[in-house]
Amino acid sequence: MKTDIEIAQEAKMLPIVDVGEKIGIESDYLELYGNYKAKVSPKLWDKVKDNEDGKLILVTSINPTPAGEGKSTVTVGLGQALNRLKKKAAIALREPSLGPCMGIKGGAAGGGYSQVVPMEDINLHFTGDMHAIGSAHNLLSAMIDNHIHQGNELNIDVRRITWKRAIDMNDRALREIVVGLGGKANGFPRQDGFIITVASEIMAILCLATDFKDLKERIGKIIIGYDKDGNPVTAKDLKADGAMTLLLKDAIKPNLVQTLENVPAFIHGGPFANIAHGCNSIIATKYGLKLADYLVTEAGFGADLGAEKFFDIKCRYGGLKPSAAVVVATIRALKMHGGLKKDELTAENLDALRKGIGNLLKQIENVHKYGIPVVVAINRFKYDTESEIEYVKKSCKDLDVDVSVADVWEKGGEGGIELAKQVINACEKESKFKPLYELNMPIKDKIKTIAKEIYGADGVGYTKEALKDLKNIEDLGLDNLPVCVAKTQYSLSDNPKLLGRPEGFDITVKGLNISAGAGFIVVMTGDIMTMPGLPKSPAAERMDIDEEGKITGLF
Amino acid sequence: MKTDIEIAQEAKMLPIVDVGEKIGIESDYLELYGNYKAKVSPKLWDKVKDNEDGKLILVTSINPTPAGEGKSTVTVGLGQALNRLKKKAAIALREPSLGPCMGIKGGAAGGGYSQVVPMEDINLHFTGDMHAIGSAHNLLSAMIDNHIHQGNELNIDVRRITWKRAIDMNDRALREIVVGLGGKANGFPRQDGFIITVASEIMAILCLATDFKDLKERIGKIIIGYDKDGNPVTAKDLKADGAMTLLLKDAIKPNLVQTLENVPAFIHGGPFANIAHGCNSIIATKYGLKLADYLVTEAGFGADLGAEKFFDIKCRYGGLKPSAAVVVATIRALKMHGGLKKDELTAENLDALRKGIGNLLKQIENVHKYGIPVVVAINRFKYDTESEIEYVKKSCKDLDVDVSVADVWEKGGEGGIELAKQVINACEKESKFKPLYELNMPIKDKIKTIAKEIYGADGVGYTKEALKDLKNIEDLGLDNLPVCVAKTQYSLSDNPKLLGRPEGFDITVKGLNISAGAGFIVVMTGDIMTMPGLPKSPAAERMDIDEEGKITGLF
Repeated sequence: MKTDIEIAQEAKMLPIVDVGEKIGIESDYLELYGNYKAKVSPKLWDKVKDNEDGKLILVTSINPTPAGEGKSTVTVGLGQALNRLKKKAAIALREPSLGPCMGIKGGAAGGGYSQVVPMEDINLHFTGDMHAIGSAHNLLSAMIDNHIHQGNELNIDVRRITWKRAIDMNDRALREIVVGLGGKANGFPRQDGFIITVASEIMAILCLATDFKDLKERIGKIIIGYDKDGNPVTAKDLKADGAMTLLLKDAIKPNLVQTLENVPAFIHGGPFANIAHGCNSIIATKYGLKLADYLVTEAGFGADLGAEKFFDIKCRYGGLKPSAAVVVATIRALKMHGGLKKDELTAENLDALRKGIGNLLKQIENVHKYGIPVVVAINRFKYDTESEIEYVKKSCKDLDVDVSVADVWEKGGEGGIELAKQVINACEKESKFKPLYELNMPIKDKIKTIAKEIYGADGVGYTKEALKDLKNIEDLGLDNLPVCVAKTQYSLSDNPKLLGRPEGFDITVKGLNISAGAGFIVVMTGDIMTMPGLPKSPAAERMDIDEEGKITGLF
Repeated sequence: MKTDIEIAQEAKMLPIVDVGEKIGIESDYLELYGNYKAKVSPKLWDKVKDNEDGKLILVTSINPTPAGEGKSTVTVGLGQALNRLKKKAAIALREPSLGPCMGIKGGAAGGGYSQVVPMEDINLHFTGDMHAIGSAHNLLSAMIDNHIHQGNELNIDVRRITWKRAIDMNDRALREIVVGLGGKANGFPRQDGFIITVASEIMAILCLATDFKDLKERIGKIIIGYDKDGNPVTAKDLKADGAMTLLLKDAIKPNLVQTLENVPAFIHGGPFANIAHGCNSIIATKYGLKLADYLVTEAGFGADLGAEKFFDIKCRYGGLKPSAAVVVATIRALKMHGGLKKDELTAENLDALRKGIGNLLKQIENVHKYGIPVVVAINRFKYDTESEIEYVKKSCKDLDVDVSVADVWEKGGEGGIELAKQVINACEKESKFKPLYELNMPIKDKIKTIAKEIYGADGVGYTKEALKDLKNIEDLGLDNLPVCVAKTQYSLSDNPKLLGRPEGFDITVKGLNISAGAGFIVVMTGDIMTMPGLPKSPAAERMDIDEEGKITGLF
């Protein structure tokens, strides 16, 4: 069997100007990065802004398991299938991060015959967005310590600086550090740490900004910490907002590439899905909707985190109205939700499936709460049996939801034709989209609404620390922002071990952080790792490139 | 008077494919980054490698002073002047670093009507080379700490890790840090620090590699520190060389842009000129020589550091044979070498000029030692008087060296016509180029040769530490490498206060560092800052970009 990179390297790519032409982008509106990557010029907006929006389709999933779900693969495959049905289709994905690519994951851009290409470029530096975000982030960091070193006119409290530094690398040694050592010339020593660039608030801002003006305003609002009187200090107070925005002048432009079947793919922005909202940029999504009749996009993790934030944060800020959602599941993963271990998945096991299916059904119910039609895609693996597939189909039909088996990994768009037809049908139904909660509700009520309605929790508890954070947010008058829950991705609850459809649990809020620039309150329900480490044998050890430029080890 | 950025923004740029065409690059061999930047495809080499080499002209200068010399400006202006004389000319410059741009300097890409454009892009992320180098650097750092965390099979001594981390930012707080705090999950605590990316050995390697194979081999040879038995540990030992090279797959390709008068400009690589060799890449230089009849390039700092390393390191490794050198001086700067302060430079002062001219004459003599014809360019400032200019001209003529007044800042290529004619004449003379020393000389002899012949020192002293370093290098069998002296740029000596042409001094070697990948021994004659800080009011505070994309504050 061919590896992903082997399949990708055999791809017959079209010049990116031809790909753009498919959805009506004239070559003058593309800023080329080689022959197969481009950024969309901001000039295009004036030309397309009055176009009618296409249909926005969200691909989401059950709670992830080690068995794999294949959400990106289905997103790409569905776009390719719509294209085969002669629809003007495009997809919108998140940009992969370099750090994890060097760690466990290798590459990440779909899989098999449903990938985006040029895969190597997308997985490495791509068009430099991640680096630009890192530069803007670290410029602010440098300006904070420099401000203190040069006299601290703003009276910044070095014990209360919440803005860490950022790097696009998996590097556990940088999680907790002390900076400013070595004497007077090197500034004031203080505790600090690095987060991975995708966890930067600037990444979330880039993805939620609706235009360039909005970008600069949001950057200015970033709270970097507090002064000695307890007042917040912002990036604008440090006069960093202009230069930071300048550093993002190209990063803000959506990137255009293509799938293996030459379907236009916007790949732009990729924030964390726990401490941030986990979706590609609003700007890329809006371009996609103006240019294509069907825009297929995805959100991070399972629907409890990804879809909730897509609807309540991204769609709200972007004024987007999704037409349908696809919930992806695999038989293997549902059996893990039913209690099986990873090495027990090849044999048919209807009992485990019966125990695990609740996770899928709950996620479907949840999406329905937003007023959106749902289609289920069973991403096929070779050990799936007919009885197992039939069982899932029947269970979904009981909720009046269409189901199809997608074989897009092995067959590309051809393997997603039935899914595409069901999605087209779903898009014909009326979308009664509305967010789950109102912004003017008290923060506790917003959290309770999500916990009860989406997670299925009985209630919400708060630690003393969290209540203190809450009071600070209310004092600052920031309680009208949407909430962004940082929770384990593996369970509907805040306990990663409660699989399937847990009931009778509470969730506990351990702290609340303010992302005033991005425009949400991060609700921490556990320790979230914002700087991953490398594994014992990093993928980087097996990567290579020969004299002819042939790359191995990205997969 | 218009600022540099205002002049640059008014430039009438040609599409970069048209610029490439001027020196015979067909558009198929350019990888575009927008309309005005491109990387040269490695495929072009096979096509041009048998072309006869053009003339290689080095632009160097007297020791820098706060008055400014304008070496890059003259390099650009000379290229433009050669072009006006209907010569097939190109220039090759170093890439600017983002950190200093945010600090004091604002932009750096020539000045006035002798600039390279698009200036904003070149000064910000350009084509991402600096970021790629940073990623490769920090991947190695992460793999070092991960190796130790995961069991330390190579027995690395955490007290003897010489490989720091890197970031393209002026950030003094990162000079000395402690990493790995916070307990077992975060690895082993140890002392560490960040250097600015341009100071990374990877930058030096990228600039000295002659091809892709050479790049990977040099990366593999990087010594990151020592094991507990005192043996060196390399990037190859850590299996990091493949992935690091992969991260540089695009960075290794030369960048093509243009001057304000549409002369092709290769801007590629920019290593420090103290702890590294301070020249743009060998690969870009070689392409330039194959494509143009005249390639004008520059080296960092004054001729004592820049030209010496250009000849003894870059030309030696690249098999390059320079045809002529231009030594740039300003009347203002020579008067500072004669003892004046910065606020005393507007009035005519032949006495100060007489005292300071020795610096220029010594640099001319030095370049002559390499067997190269020299031309002097007086970069005109408005307060220069005729008598002052005449005095400099006469002094140089005594050394049988042509002199011209270059007014390229104000007049572009037109202001460099006389200079260009003198350079063309110099190139007709026979170049008897040879490096100053042989590689098989003992290290101490190589250092002594440079100190006596180039700096004019009486002798060289060594600290105990330096002698220990020397022994280690000999034990490792690395004493056949060229030496790279890290010395103050402001004086021919190692004392920044000894201006003009100092005599009767010794230089003191305080330590020797191995850059085994780059392929040189760094000779430290003082404390060299490898991580700058931001000033009280950073340039970043005044940078901005408006909704139409109009940039201010880069200058």
